[in-house]
Amino acid sequence: MVNPDPQPGWEVVSSEPVYQSPYLEVRSEAVRVPGDGRVRKWITVRRKQAVVVAPMTASGNFVLIRQARIPVRQLSWEFPAGQFDGEAEPTLESLQETAVRELAEETGYTLAGDGALLPLGHFYSSHGFTDEKQHLFVARPVRLSRAGRRPDETEFIAETREFSLGELRQMIAENIIQDANTLAVFARLTAKGLIG
Amino acid sequence: MVNPDPQPGWEVVSSEPVYQSPYLEVRSEAVRVPGDGRVRKWITVRRKQAVVVAPMTASGNFVLIRQARIPVRQLSWEFPAGQFDGEAEPTLESLQETAVRELAEETGYTLAGDGALLPLGHFYSSHGFTDEKQHLFVARPVRLSRAGRRPDETEFIAETREFSLGELRQMIAENIIQDANTLAVFARLTAKGLIG
Repeated sequence: MVNPDPQPGWEVVSSEPVYQSPYLEVRSEAVRVPGDGRVRKWITVRRKQAVVVAPMTASGNFVLIRQARIPVRQLSWEFPAGQFDGEAEPTLESLQETAVRELAEETGYTLAGDGALLPLGHFYSSHGFTDEKQHLFVARPVRLSRAGRRPDETEFIAETREFSLGELRQMIAENIIQDANTLAVFARLTAKGLIG
Repeated sequence: MVNPDPQPGWEVVSSEPVYQSPYLEVRSEAVRVPGDGRVRKWITVRRKQAVVVAPMTASGNFVLIRQARIPVRQLSWEFPAGQFDGEAEPTLESLQETAVRELAEETGYTLAGDGALLPLGHFYSSHGFTDEKQHLFVARPVRLSRAGRRPDETEFIAETREFSLGELRQMIAENIIQDANTLAVFARLTAKGLIG
């Protein structure tokens, strides 16, 4: 798991693993916040960093997948995403490689010849209890590849479909899009003025 | 912890706790997805449900707090949020009570006499590994109360400030806002046409 570097002034008094699996690590920590005297005890879940990709076609459609999400017993319409497997802190290049791989595996789409991956920053999914950090990209334009989808066999993707910007917006407004990844990408695209 | 009701067609073959604390519970699960024959083994983190509130003043400003987030060693500008403590599935009324309480405790603001809490749906912070579900509200208009802030003593809130919509948008575009809660609320407000 990637260990977040403490920012200046943070003091990690102790950090001990209390549960470990290949997917997450639970630690019992004692930390001092900058500008605060007391030591705070916390239960923290470490997770690998991840990437989220918003695939846009040349005609301005967004490609979404309908994926089984075991912890919430739901099939969820969302942008493709996947974990970064390296041990070291990822570089922009290694994150982009992960994004291109997840895009192909989960959607069967690929960057067109003139396509590019534009970084949209990152976000923390739930920084009250986990260090999980997602790096966001928009991939445009993308096109359907001949190879087709080849999802990881632990994943279950029921469907892949293109949606117009109006349809995506409506799915967000109507609580059909329910995952932090897709909502975060939409927020960044909107705030940056990259979608209308 | 609230147990998500399986949607029709989901079969929970087994679900055993492997680590428990007052803040989270890790379970080892075996689940069958609708329309899929195989049993999938998964490590799932159960968390309480939570609320997020976007406080808007009569003049259209947003109230944000700068809160210490231990797992990522950061002070983070974000909308106030808090967990729902009931045992049963929350009702809209009980979520609104939690939202009003967290708003007062964390910001020192309160709903004005003509104010209302408008529900914006919910989202899952990271449904690949946790069932954590956040219910979103916009509170408007809010006004500074005489009582002032009284944060929970486990929390560290360094600052409370009003930001214009333009400032909020810029903070999102420039990767200063980094939490799923605030990005999700902004996405819903935008998609619903509630902010310009």
